[in-house]
This record gives sequence, C-alpha cells and structure tokens, in this order.
Amino acid sequence: MKYTIGIDYGTLSCRALVMNAETGETLGGSECGYTVYDKALPTGEKLPDRAALADPAEYLQALEKVVHEAIANAHIDPKDVAGIAVDTTSMSLVSCDQNGTPLCMQEKWKREPLAYIRMWKSYTATKAAEDIGRMAKEKRTSFLAACGGNPSSEGAYPKLLETLRKNPELYNEIDVALDLHEWLAWVLTGKMQRSMNTMGMKNYCADGKTLPSGDFWRSIDERFENVNDKLRGDVLSWGERAGELTEEMADKLGLPAGIAVASCALDGHAPMMALGLKESGDAMMTIGTSGVLCVISDHHEAIDGICGQSFSGLVPGFYGYDFAQSGVGDMFGWFVDNCVPGKYERMAAEKGISVHQLLSEMGFAKPVGESGLVAVDWWNGSRSIVVDQTLTGVITGMKLSTKPEDIYRALVEAAAFGMRAMRDALEDKGVKVNRICVCGGIAAKNPLLLQCYADILGSELRLSTLPNSAAAGAAIAAAAAAGAYPTLPDAMDALSSREFKRVTPDMQRHAQYEALYEKYKKLRKFFGENK
Amino acid sequence: MKYTIGIDYGTLSCRALVMNAETGETLGGSECGYTVYDKALPTGEKLPDRAALADPAEYLQALEKVVHEAIANAHIDPKDVAGIAVDTTSMSLVSCDQNGTPLCMQEKWKREPLAYIRMWKSYTATKAAEDIGRMAKEKRTSFLAACGGNPSSEGAYPKLLETLRKNPELYNEIDVALDLHEWLAWVLTGKMQRSMNTMGMKNYCADGKTLPSGDFWRSIDERFENVNDKLRGDVLSWGERAGELTEEMADKLGLPAGIAVASCALDGHAPMMALGLKESGDAMMTIGTSGVLCVISDHHEAIDGICGQSFSGLVPGFYGYDFAQSGVGDMFGWFVDNCVPGKYERMAAEKGISVHQLLSEMGFAKPVGESGLVAVDWWNGSRSIVVDQTLTGVITGMKLSTKPEDIYRALVEAAAFGMRAMRDALEDKGVKVNRICVCGGIAAKNPLLLQCYADILGSELRLSTLPNSAAAGAAIAAAAAAGAYPTLPDAMDALSSREFKRVTPDMQRHAQYEALYEKYKKLRKFFGENK
Repeated sequence: MKYTIGIDYGTLSCRALVMNAETGETLGGSECGYTVYDKALPTGEKLPDRAALADPAEYLQALEKVVHEAIANAHIDPKDVAGIAVDTTSMSLVSCDQNGTPLCMQEKWKREPLAYIRMWKSYTATKAAEDIGRMAKEKRTSFLAACGGNPSSEGAYPKLLETLRKNPELYNEIDVALDLHEWLAWVLTGKMQRSMNTMGMKNYCADGKTLPSGDFWRSIDERFENVNDKLRGDVLSWGERAGELTEEMADKLGLPAGIAVASCALDGHAPMMALGLKESGDAMMTIGTSGVLCVISDHHEAIDGICGQSFSGLVPGFYGYDFAQSGVGDMFGWFVDNCVPGKYERMAAEKGISVHQLLSEMGFAKPVGESGLVAVDWWNGSRSIVVDQTLTGVITGMKLSTKPEDIYRALVEAAAFGMRAMRDALEDKGVKVNRICVCGGIAAKNPLLLQCYADILGSELRLSTLPNSAAAGAAIAAAAAAGAYPTLPDAMDALSSREFKRVTPDMQRHAQYEALYEKYKKLRKFFGENK
Repeated sequence: MKYTIGIDYGTLSCRALVMNAETGETLGGSECGYTVYDKALPTGEKLPDRAALADPAEYLQALEKVVHEAIANAHIDPKDVAGIAVDTTSMSLVSCDQNGTPLCMQEKWKREPLAYIRMWKSYTATKAAEDIGRMAKEKRTSFLAACGGNPSSEGAYPKLLETLRKNPELYNEIDVALDLHEWLAWVLTGKMQRSMNTMGMKNYCADGKTLPSGDFWRSIDERFENVNDKLRGDVLSWGERAGELTEEMADKLGLPAGIAVASCALDGHAPMMALGLKESGDAMMTIGTSGVLCVISDHHEAIDGICGQSFSGLVPGFYGYDFAQSGVGDMFGWFVDNCVPGKYERMAAEKGISVHQLLSEMGFAKPVGESGLVAVDWWNGSRSIVVDQTLTGVITGMKLSTKPEDIYRALVEAAAFGMRAMRDALEDKGVKVNRICVCGGIAAKNPLLLQCYADILGSELRLSTLPNSAAAGAAIAAAAAAGAYPTLPDAMDALSSREFKRVTPDMQRHAQYEALYEKYKKLRKFFGENK
C-alpha cells in the first residue's frame, strides 16, 4: 500500500489531499468551492432568516473534481491508492429516500428548503430544540447529559422535528436521515451506516447504542414516535472500515474499485487524528472562525453546558468531550470591518501589515489590565456552559481614553477567557487537560493572540503546523481502514504530525489575568441570567 | 440705563456680550481663549494625572480683552454701560491671600500646582472627597443631603483637604478660597463676598448660612478644623448687587467706575436667567460636552445621588435641584474619533455632512430596539444617582450584524436614558418637572438626537435659540443688580429669550423605549454595584 486520500468538506469548499501511507507525508492537494444557500434556493424560492442550505448535487460534483485534481497534483498512479475517507461540517442533515437519494433531488421536493442539506449553521430549528430540551428536563431523561443539558438546534432530532411540524408529508417520505459525512460514506460504499462521532457527539447516543426512546419522542408529538427509525444503522468509530469503493464511484473518481472507505468524522474533530492525540488528557483547541475544545479522557463525568460527550465519540476507547465557542475569528473580523478608524487602516497599509496585526501589536504592547476593558465573547451567541444562541456580546470598562487597539485586545482576551471557561469546566469535574494542541487559521497567523491564550490558560500550547489537519486526519483514518496498521492508534503513531511550535505561558501575566477572568465570569453569569 | 455686559468663562475661552437692558437684544460679542494646564504648569513642572489647572493672570488678561472688544463690536458708548456680571466654570477653586491675590501669583508658590486655579475637571481630590463622604455617613451629618449623599471631588472642601494633606504650609497661607466667579466679582468690586449658587450647590450650604461644623472637620483632620474660615463671607443670590466697579478695574476695562457688579453663577446655571425659568417645575436641560438638569420647585425633598440642592441656590426663592451627567458630547466625540471606519468618513465627505450627522441619519432610520443594543453612558464616570467618577461605560447586545450607526444611536439613547433617570429621580420624590428648556451645542446641532431625548423622556422639549445663554444670563443679572428692574424675576420677564423650537415626543416610540429603559436601569444597578 502506498497512498490514501483524505477529503475535508468545509462550509465554503472541500479540499482533498494525498498522503503517503508509510511516512505520513502529504503529496498534493486540491480545492473546489460550492454554494451556501442562505437567501434563496437554487430554484429561486426565498429562504427564512438564519437558514443555511447546501445542494448535494454540488457536493458530488466537487467530490469528483477534488479527487481527480489531488491525484494529478500529487503525481501518483491512482492504482496505488488504497483507501479514502471524508470528513464534513456537522451536523449537516441529509434527508434521503431508501436508496440514499437526498429528497431535494426529487422533482417533487426541489422547491422545499427542508429537503436540502441543512448545514450546521442553519439555525431555523431553534424552537424545536428548545421544546426537546424543555420536555427532556421535565421528564429528567438521561440523554440530556450527552448534550450538556441543552440540545443544540444543530442536531438531527431538532431538524427532523422542525420538518415534521412544517411539512409532515416530507417528514413521512424521509426514509433515513444522516449527517453529511455518513451520507458521503454511503455514496462511496453503497452501505448505509452511522458514525459514532456524529451519533455520540450530536445525537445524544453516548454509548453508541441507546437513543432517546420512542415514548419520549411521542410525548413531544405522537407523529414523532418513529423518528429513531430514520436514524437507524450500525454505528462505526473513526478509522473503522465502512466498506469498499463501489464500481460506479470508482469509475467516477478514477480510483480502483474495492479499496477501503473509512468511517470518519466531523471536520472539527478529524484533526485529532492528524495531531496524534491518543492519551487521556490530550486536547485539541481550535482557534478559527469559531473556537473548539475537544478532550479525550479515561475519566467519565457529566459536564453541564457541554456541546457533546460520549464514549468513543472522539478517539475510540476514550470518553470524548466537545465544547464549542460560536464567535472567535468572526468577532475579530467584525471589529476590523466595523470599528476601526481610517487612520488605522492607513497606518497598517504604510507598515505593510494587516489591520489585525497592527491592532494586536498596539494592543498587546500595554500591561495586562491597563485599559480596564473586559468583554464577553457572545457576538454570535453562546454554545457552551451558558447555552443560548440568542445571547449577545458585551464590552465593559469604556472610557474617553479607550483606543481601538484596547477594544481589539479585550475581544481577544474574551475569546481566550471563553476557552478557559470551557477548559476549567472540565477540570473542575476531574477531567484533566494535560496537553493542548492548537490548530485553526487565526492561531497560526497571530502569535500575539496565541501568547494571550497561553497566558490566560496558564498552559503550554503546541501549535500544529499542518496546513490541512482535517483532511490529514481523514487520510489517517483511511490508512487504518485499509489495514495498513493493526489499529487506528498505530496509524496515528506512524502518520500523525510531529511538528509543533511550542508557546510557553508567562506565569506573571497569568496571575495578573486572574482578576480580569473573575470579572469575565461575573459578567457571563449576569448576562446569562439577564438577556 | 442702556446696556449691561455679561461675561461667560468656559473651560477653553471666555465670551462677553453687550445686552440692551430695555429690550434684551444682544448687540455684539467677543471671545478670548486661555490655557488648560493638564500636563505641566506654565513654569514647566509636570502635573499628576487628571489635574486641570488655570492661570489667573491669563483670566484677567482675557477679561480686559473681551470687554474692550465686545464694546467695540457692539458700537456703543461705554459710558452707557450700567452693569456687569461674570459667570464661570465651577467649582474652580481660587486660593488667595488676604488681598485676594491668588497664591500662584506669588514667587514662592508659582511652582506649586495646588496654588493655581483648580478647575472643575481637576479630579485629583477624589480620595479627599471619599474620606469626607465616609466620615459624613458615619456621623450621619445633615449636610450630606445637599450633595445627594456623595460629596463630589469638584467641591471646595475636598480640594482644600487635598491641599492640607499634600502641602500644609500652602494650606496655612490660604486666607480665603473662592469659586472663580466669586473671585472675579471680588476683583471687580474690591469686596470679598460669596455666591449662594456656589455655596448652596457645591459647598453643602443648603440654607445659605450653615456650613458643616468645625467639629466635623476636626474629626477628619485636626488641622482642618479651621477650614470654614477660608470660606467666610456674606452670601449673595443671583442678580444681587455685589458692589460697584472699582476705579482701577474701570480704567482697565474702559468702563465707568461705580457701575453695578452683580453676584452671578456658575456657567451651567446662568442660562436659567436667559431662558426665563421662574415657575415651580421649570427645568433646564443642557446637552453639550456633558449633560445637566436643573429644576426649580416649591417642593422640598432630599434627593439621593443629586449633585447639589439648596434653597435659592438656583433661581432665588425656589428650591434648586442640580443633576449632572459626566459624558455626553464627549462620548459621541470619542466614538467618532475612535470607532468609525474609513468608509463612513468617506461617505460623510461625499454627502458633505459631518460623521455625527451621517451616523445619526443611518442609526435613527431604524425602528426602536431593532439593533438590540443598550449602553450605559459612563465613559467619563457617573456624577448623578450612582455617584462614582471611576465607573466606566458599557455596551451590551453586540452581534456580528451590529453596525457603527447602531452603536452611535445606542450611545445617544444611553445619554437620554441617563437624563431620564435624573428627571425620574426628582419626579419619584414629588419634585415635578413641567416645562423643559434645552440648551447646549449638541442639542442645537442634532435634531435627531433631540427628538430621541423627547421620545425617551416622553416630554415636549423647548430648544433655546440663544447663541450664548450663559453670558445672556449674566447680563440679565447685571441689569437686575443695576436697578433697571425692581427684582430679578422682573428683569427675567423683560429680557429673557422668548424664542424656542418646540420638539414634540412621539408617544408610540416613547412606549417602545420603555423596555430598553428598563434594561438600562438594570445595567446601571449591576455595574454601579460591580465595578
């Protein structure tokens, strides 16, 4: 065996890479964009606020394109490819008929938004999620622990309940509903199966077997009693063999038929394989458009306000914990677009640096706490600990002497405080976080920001230098599924990245940040309770 | 009698005008700037943070210049001038020897900041004010009611206590300490007297006679027992005759010796005379760099968190109530200087309007509450209700969709909410506010802002069109002192402005603003208690 292919479906494009399955070297990649439908459908119908849909036809076209181009760019013989795997944004619900055809591809449903791929950031099922959460609390159901006490509107159940309520006929025609990467594995193998990653971290299936009961669903709506049928299927872990590439897909992709297809993961989790995280206490911190903290542990404890937790939902064999922060890079981008005076734009242009870098250099030149500002990072709602997407951001400590760089720094600090709150929520319950690897575009681009995170967390951070760690993780899963290594951990040992840039916390600044962090927590508490 | 002269000393310049004492017509004015010393003394010594000093020599030069120029510009014969009066920023402490010479004019003290005029915004006596407040609460002294329970660091007592602590020798050499307009009246008449306006509204002398006892001052510092000696002197009301212009000053100013000099007022209060406010329930609202609400009433009630209250401290014969807001125009100016993107600057330039106007037009084009933002207007601390100059501003409700014009509008609304909180604090205690006249540069310049104030207050506002209402008020005081009218109210009847632009509240928007105002009050409470 020589090569595997990992494919990463993000929000705006998918990226493929070819990995040398003996050395872990990545040999060439490719990228193909597609559309987020958030104003109108491809057929022209207007969409409601906060809808964000995708067209499965575009995703299939992109699949063919990136595989052909990655092979061409890597200058390899496609016959030497032994495995393939796909990670995707999640939870991106695909509602299918019994053949795995998304219902929006039927003439009958092509004008119905609910029949399209409903992306993670399609927030129209908020009411459904609230109703599920309320009933679950009333009935004290045990599945609540798997979602930290608060079902997110991103999950399959809220989206299906929304479908039932808005279009019962469509709901009845859904034979099976899957997460995007589960559906793509079905397309590749012809076998309908589930991913433990999605079922455990998004669909309250903490042990890989038990779903909320039909009785529970009936208590919400009697027509919803059968919803678990639509989520049926065997549940596979990362790197398990989902099946073999079909003749039909092999033709389309220019790959050998019968090669291994791996069960994979959502794009925010797949990098853990590429980072080689496989000890209790290993953590991955993502600082990008949003923030993520994933931790694996031997220790099992229910964590309030977590996004998802389950056994083997992340790295197989460990309890996996997943926290997310809605607005991080988005918030910094908002600030630069909306709050920075012309003179700063000109200053940055003169120095030949970005406005982000200018503000970081100016803001972090001052001692900790000097500006007096403390912000709460809820520009895009709050997904963890205090779970409420309608919450909003706060800036306190404003004075006539406050400068733009002070506010920018306060936003960076708020994002880091948010990350610390998630880490501390785990450690307070005995889930130790020992080794933190960092990925995400902003972490790599802004060393001052990353130093601030290290200072506030009081922890060493290891910045991954991998350019596309999600696709690399998928390629490692493919190598394990192809049998190149006895187990997934062995594949991770051999193929994961060893290159990290270490960022050491300044413990004096860490101590100085304590007072600000206490203020931040007090603000979160007040604004969490007083919208 | 034909003319009087009113002179208004502001923070950065003084302005004189000549008034026809029969018609109230103003005939010509003049202006002369001077220096605020906030970094270093004229002699070069560096100043502490938040110091703001003035040099009395510059003030005397400005006096000569503006009087000569105003007479020249008005094309009158100076022999026809029958009276003169001066209002000034207050509390601006002038520490003098027994001849009325400010101590900084002595060679010995010219390098000592505490010997200069210490302006209203010289906030170095904060600790002294806190100590006085704490002891007064401990001893439950009655004078606390005159300052709403919280002595401001602007007052004479805190500034003198600061002097005693930092330079006891200087303190001992102060024979008498006065507010700036009291000192200028002394310069003009040769007679040392007090103003009821300053004593009542700034120095806790609510009845014009009773000062906090020497026993009380000894309890703070035994060397401070004698402080009331330095504040001795007869107390005069607005428009009372302070004396006659001395030969020496008549020579310098080019005016007849022996003409009347009126006791006057601080610059924020003097406009009440020009606006003709002389009924119970009359109010003056100032929307400028800072905000002011002055109300006169038959009704006497102690108001918590007021800046000053006393009998005859404002219009003689009424209880006067004075509330102030630290940051209003300053806050809007801060926003435009620090938070507005280049593209907005270009948009304003293309339309040929100011950035303030652009932001107002864009921000107020949206329905009430649409942005979801609520701010607290404490960019420069809080002087009323919650009294604490170390408090800071807050913005809540920030989203990725928040625009600069939304924030600007939220700041305007916060300033108006702050004004409403002051008005309501009076009305809640039975001090009715019936008729609100508005002055201040920002109120005149920004009709959308003024409409927002009217909507939030739910009250008609009468915008004065007088260009310099403080100096006009001083000229009316001078007319009363000169005997042109039997009483000050008669002079106000004859000479005050009749020209107002009426702004009617939109009561539907008023109702919509209620929910935002409730949020604002909740935020004030939380941040007042949690710095």
